[in-house]
Amino acid sequence: MLTERVRFKPLQDKITDSATAASHIQDGTNLFISGFTAGYPKLIPQELVNRSENGEQFKINLFAGASTGEMVDGILAKADLVAWRRPYMSDKFMRNKINQGKIAFKDDHLSQLSANVRAGEWGRCDVAVVEAAAITEKGHLIPTMSVGNTPTYVREAQKIIIEISAISPLLEGIHDIFIPEDPPYRMPIPLYRTADRIGKPFIEMNPDRVVAILFSTEKDCCPIFMPPNSTSSRIAEHILDFVRHEINKDRIPPNLPWQAGVGDVANAVLSGFIGDKNFDSIDIYSEVLQDSVLDLIDLGKVRAASGSAMTLSEKARERFFNEIYRYRDKIVLRPVEISNSPEVIRRLGVIAINTAIEIDIYGQVNSTHVMGTQLMNGIGGSGDFIRNGALTMMVTPSTAKGGMISAIVPMVSHVDHSEHSVDVVVTEYGLVDARPLTPRQVAEQVIKKCVHPDYRDQLWDYYQRAARERGGHEPHILEKAFFMHQLFMEKGDMRVR
Amino acid sequence: MLTERVRFKPLQDKITDSATAASHIQDGTNLFISGFTAGYPKLIPQELVNRSENGEQFKINLFAGASTGEMVDGILAKADLVAWRRPYMSDKFMRNKINQGKIAFKDDHLSQLSANVRAGEWGRCDVAVVEAAAITEKGHLIPTMSVGNTPTYVREAQKIIIEISAISPLLEGIHDIFIPEDPPYRMPIPLYRTADRIGKPFIEMNPDRVVAILFSTEKDCCPIFMPPNSTSSRIAEHILDFVRHEINKDRIPPNLPWQAGVGDVANAVLSGFIGDKNFDSIDIYSEVLQDSVLDLIDLGKVRAASGSAMTLSEKARERFFNEIYRYRDKIVLRPVEISNSPEVIRRLGVIAINTAIEIDIYGQVNSTHVMGTQLMNGIGGSGDFIRNGALTMMVTPSTAKGGMISAIVPMVSHVDHSEHSVDVVVTEYGLVDARPLTPRQVAEQVIKKCVHPDYRDQLWDYYQRAARERGGHEPHILEKAFFMHQLFMEKGDMRVR
Repeated sequence: MLTERVRFKPLQDKITDSATAASHIQDGTNLFISGFTAGYPKLIPQELVNRSENGEQFKINLFAGASTGEMVDGILAKADLVAWRRPYMSDKFMRNKINQGKIAFKDDHLSQLSANVRAGEWGRCDVAVVEAAAITEKGHLIPTMSVGNTPTYVREAQKIIIEISAISPLLEGIHDIFIPEDPPYRMPIPLYRTADRIGKPFIEMNPDRVVAILFSTEKDCCPIFMPPNSTSSRIAEHILDFVRHEINKDRIPPNLPWQAGVGDVANAVLSGFIGDKNFDSIDIYSEVLQDSVLDLIDLGKVRAASGSAMTLSEKARERFFNEIYRYRDKIVLRPVEISNSPEVIRRLGVIAINTAIEIDIYGQVNSTHVMGTQLMNGIGGSGDFIRNGALTMMVTPSTAKGGMISAIVPMVSHVDHSEHSVDVVVTEYGLVDARPLTPRQVAEQVIKKCVHPDYRDQLWDYYQRAARERGGHEPHILEKAFFMHQLFMEKGDMRVR
Repeated sequence: MLTERVRFKPLQDKITDSATAASHIQDGTNLFISGFTAGYPKLIPQELVNRSENGEQFKINLFAGASTGEMVDGILAKADLVAWRRPYMSDKFMRNKINQGKIAFKDDHLSQLSANVRAGEWGRCDVAVVEAAAITEKGHLIPTMSVGNTPTYVREAQKIIIEISAISPLLEGIHDIFIPEDPPYRMPIPLYRTADRIGKPFIEMNPDRVVAILFSTEKDCCPIFMPPNSTSSRIAEHILDFVRHEINKDRIPPNLPWQAGVGDVANAVLSGFIGDKNFDSIDIYSEVLQDSVLDLIDLGKVRAASGSAMTLSEKARERFFNEIYRYRDKIVLRPVEISNSPEVIRRLGVIAINTAIEIDIYGQVNSTHVMGTQLMNGIGGSGDFIRNGALTMMVTPSTAKGGMISAIVPMVSHVDHSEHSVDVVVTEYGLVDARPLTPRQVAEQVIKKCVHPDYRDQLWDYYQRAARERGGHEPHILEKAFFMHQLFMEKGDMRVR
């Protein structure tokens, strides 16, 4: 085990216990960790909590690739150990503390932040803690199930702590690590096809900076996927019908790669390919690869799948680990600044599908703040894909909370993506292609085709009144624009009765 | 004249009069024109108006590079000849008709629309009308003061009408025309430095499609520039101080290229370089080049200036035309899909400065809709630069309408750029670098540093009340969020008295 996992001999001396390793992390440490829905360190966060429970007073600034879940964000937030957190998280305890203003949080477009860190915008990179499958003969790192910003964090860190995942297969050859030059001397990112490998299969590391190595048998704790239900299946059908139609009309070529955001709807969309003979050789150029990607590979339908992380259910992960030989050539995991690069997304012409919290009648999208104030998870990579895809779609079930919230509202209470970037709006009721429409036409179509029947009349009334009383290119009655949000906050139901 | 301007002999037969040329444009024609603040056709629009005044009933769909001003958008809108208009315009008559719903308008990110046109999203390209300085020996086009989308329009058009500008110098060598391949077989855009020329100095054209050639002595009618006043000068000072500071802190390299939007503030920012010894060898990688660029070239301070158009005052244009030998090697005019390309903007690491209609306390920006409903001009290229620059700034004078409008509001009434994309907010009162701040910290700093003193208390009261009563990551009281807009609409003044 040891010689296979830590092949660079001088580093074998660094193997130690969690307490010794974590002693490098003190009050005020800027801690940069691996992890992007998966592949985060598990032992050091627990050790920090232990220290806190033993009465030690300290706080860290925590920077990850994206979300890390309960095992990092959750326990550190509960123990009150986090002063700052960037970017994107999805843990409910941490979310509460952020919304209470007890944890400072800033959400960045994921494609840009590695460069920002290299420029020193986030301050000194004191300690990096990264999960790895192995250390190579030359002292470089093989990551586990995500890449995220780890290559940059490892390059910038003063001290590096490595958690070797002893339960992970070696995973060599899955990753493709390329750090672009920084401006003004950056050159093109030489990625021309989804399958291309443009870097090295490991993260380059200066072994002199490694201060500790731990062995871990902890598993990623990934969210449980729901099998596609009637709502998500109908959304998927609308999308596939529409794309087939666009291909038939010769407006898009038949072989553009697909991106789908994280979650059940995204998973359902990709699952929609399973029974569809029109899509037999798919490229997936995405951020997070989910269970559906393995299913599609099993069916021989995937030419290549590229992402920055794999978020698999327990069952799918077992399949992936046990039969990695079947997936290795199809899957590439990249740094998020490559998976989400506007340059590459535009070059490849990605069809981008992302989920929204709410969408307004003009196609403005809220991806981050419930009722305009409460952070949900963050913008993540949605801005990278929606702003740059060749065909971009925002999808949402038409209602939430058992019908008491309409996902289509007069005006979204927070905007993350503007109408200029959103081509298509989809709910289980229907799809509107906004590209050839004026804002008023978008409103009319969205109300007619996408809104849940319970809400059609009240949205139509608002729109008609706004057009009559205020007019303009995008009619709104500003003092009434949030009337549905207000109704919900007062009565728990957005419906006018 | 003739042999110099129409060097491809077979096309000399196509020289004709406006009426004959314009006969190719009928009711329902999709008309694609050159023009991007300058370089638009002048004769054909006037001829269409003449026909309308003679009683002919018809409407066209009008697609340009960006704004064209009074001589195209203005007279065509007044004559009621436009059914559809895309993208960006800045003419007041057309604006009114758009806001009344009488002209259908959709605003697109400028970097993407050439590709959309090639994909057929805008329908068939019936007729292109383009201003040119000359037709080359092989039948290709030398554009005038803008490139915009003209290369794509010329390539896609069924029929081409050319207006030769007889008063323009030949301008050969100023333009660099490169049309990228379309996905999924696009390759990198091989532009690595601001000065690089990657294409041809002319627009390739199939001469068989040319149906008419006209000679024109009409001039571009460009807006009159205001010399920097104390407000715009102070904004420029804040920006230059800040960038110097960032360079000294080693967070940005000293030689990043600059982009500044259109208008007096942008012009003032670039004029700020004139007396500043720290900036002696500037690259400008922008969309529209204004007077200040010529001044800087005259002072030997510009290494290279790249854009898609030159919008010069009458006086500056004379200087440019008369002494073009002094500017030719420094200036490159490109298609807007190259000048605004996210790929290139990120690669070069552009410092992007754009003006806003209003900015809110959390850094959300409204660039397009006054009071949330009335279209001003459009988003233009601001989204391309703000979303992709290495350091992005949104600037605005703190007030408008003699102090009765605050440009900083609790919540913007329309969002074009989200807080995730805006690094820095600047008014004449001060500058806030939002990158290391949480949204609440941004609000506190913006109110303290950027807001006009008349509005500080009322914005602070709103923010404090929102934080106390609603809390959350971005505190807002939705039903009060537009109270300042309401005050203005009711009383003509945003100030609480």
